Amino acid sequence: MTGARRLDGKVVAAAIRTSLPPRVQAFTAAAGRPPGLGIVLAGHDGGSETYVRNKMVACESLGVNAVLERLPDEASVDAVLALVDRFNRAESVDGILVQSPLPSGMGRDAEKRVFDAIHPDKDVDGFTPINAGRLTQNRPGIAPGTPSGVIELLDRAGIPIEGQRAVVIGRSDIVGKPMAMLLLHRHATVTICHSRTVDLPAVAATADILVAAVGRAGFVTRDFVKPGATVIDVGTTWLRDRDEVIALFGPESPRLDVLARRGHTVVGDVHPEVAEVAGALTPVPGGVGPLTITMLLSNTLRAAELRRAT
Amino acid sequence: MTGARRLDGKVVAAAIRTSLPPRVQAFTAAAGRPPGLGIVLAGHDGGSETYVRNKMVACESLGVNAVLERLPDEASVDAVLALVDRFNRAESVDGILVQSPLPSGMGRDAEKRVFDAIHPDKDVDGFTPINAGRLTQNRPGIAPGTPSGVIELLDRAGIPIEGQRAVVIGRSDIVGKPMAMLLLHRHATVTICHSRTVDLPAVAATADILVAAVGRAGFVTRDFVKPGATVIDVGTTWLRDRDEVIALFGPESPRLDVLARRGHTVVGDVHPEVAEVAGALTPVPGGVGPLTITMLLSNTLRAAELRRAT
Repeated sequence: MTGARRLDGKVVAAAIRTSLPPRVQAFTAAAGRPPGLGIVLAGHDGGSETYVRNKMVACESLGVNAVLERLPDEASVDAVLALVDRFNRAESVDGILVQSPLPSGMGRDAEKRVFDAIHPDKDVDGFTPINAGRLTQNRPGIAPGTPSGVIELLDRAGIPIEGQRAVVIGRSDIVGKPMAMLLLHRHATVTICHSRTVDLPAVAATADILVAAVGRAGFVTRDFVKPGATVIDVGTTWLRDRDEVIALFGPESPRLDVLARRGHTVVGDVHPEVAEVAGALTPVPGGVGPLTITMLLSNTLRAAELRRAT
Repeated sequence: MTGARRLDGKVVAAAIRTSLPPRVQAFTAAAGRPPGLGIVLAGHDGGSETYVRNKMVACESLGVNAVLERLPDEASVDAVLALVDRFNRAESVDGILVQSPLPSGMGRDAEKRVFDAIHPDKDVDGFTPINAGRLTQNRPGIAPGTPSGVIELLDRAGIPIEGQRAVVIGRSDIVGKPMAMLLLHRHATVTICHSRTVDLPAVAATADILVAAVGRAGFVTRDFVKPGATVIDVGTTWLRDRDEVIALFGPESPRLDVLARRGHTVVGDVHPEVAEVAGALTPVPGGVGPLTITMLLSNTLRAAELRRAT
């Protein structure tokens, strides 16, 4: 990466984590128990096993009590819903995490049904309608982790938000729309773009802060970026094809070694050439990604604090 | 008004109203009772008396059962909350309207407390967090009346939304943010501006559809408007000063007769000179305003239908 300042998510995540232990200790002393996170892991997806293990390790190291409930691949949606219900009613559980994806045998609706069943006060992903509404109306609540992490990243990098033009590409409930709301509440002038946007590069190039959450490797090219802009890359695509990696990164890229070693390389929405025009840029991997678990911890703690406060 | 096509809210309201009676009849036949709207009117504000009377007449003419509960000026917030609670529990009440403003003696928090107490399924204003979240996530629910009315107005005027650049000036929970979400769901590329927006005229002038919801008479001048753009004026300011009216409309304006007769003239956010550049424009009065009661009727009916469907 040349030119653009590199916004390192690991550094920001580490900085956020140092702020959490005093809050965990204060909560534990006041409540007489540690903050609790209930996790449901259904099936045996390899990636999910790793993610859940990392989350549990992170909880333990912080003093958050993580309770894992496993279900077999062939479990029903009702079995997941029953676990969610138990966690909803458990006094010592402050947050509930259902690891995505659920086994495909549960049907297309399964995730929506399960996420909707999580009590809003324990919804550490911030996906329920009431938390989306609290966020839209700028009330106390729990905001989705990835966009919250982006705000932390901007703040800790000293990048101003107020009065800036921000463009968000992507309008998902998990990233795009909550990202737009968080930037709006911080007084940016916010534009939301999507697949039907006409002349997307020109609109994107009005941004002082450009957030890409599209899910298409290298989609955001140089012509999308105003020189000096801050570019936040939320995309993560697993590339497995050597030619595609070469097309994006060139034949000399160390990415090819990663590909040979692991069988894939994780690529963002932002084309490598953007580093030559952007003022600051989050790498993929190593940018927004490392904030995921930290924001889960932060949201669990926030849920615990909000539950005690009400 | 010269140049710009005039988007007449009365015509649109009348057209919407013709679509409602069959739905009222179908609901009444299926439910064994008409749709019901519970109205709370606290105090004796002259404007509120008129608004509530107009709403009740509109309900009666459509076959919606409007139930009015009055409270004296000196009533407590708890008295309002008790009425809301009764309406919440009443099976025959599908929507609840608490006329704003509440008497000032109830305190600054009163409206928020009262609106938050309305059951989300009966929240015909669409102000509760869960309805804001349903709207943000594009789920079935009740959206605030004014922005919904703007969409109706655009649709019935044949003005395309998909792929258009839309700019909303104002970020209130009642107009700005829900307006942005409704335009986004209709696939516009949406920008939300506000008091901290830098170079607001230039941003506004990128709009194919410009929605002004600022509350400042004549704020949106010619330089805010791309030639040919559709301009929607949500502002309503009561001007009582003759010099201000002359400054906006000139010394020959019939507005001066209105002022002399009524003591005020209702003025929008959009300066009269915009009519020379806009392609289409909602007048004030007579644009968005006449849709208010119609959207209340529409939302009451929608609440009734959604309650039966669940």
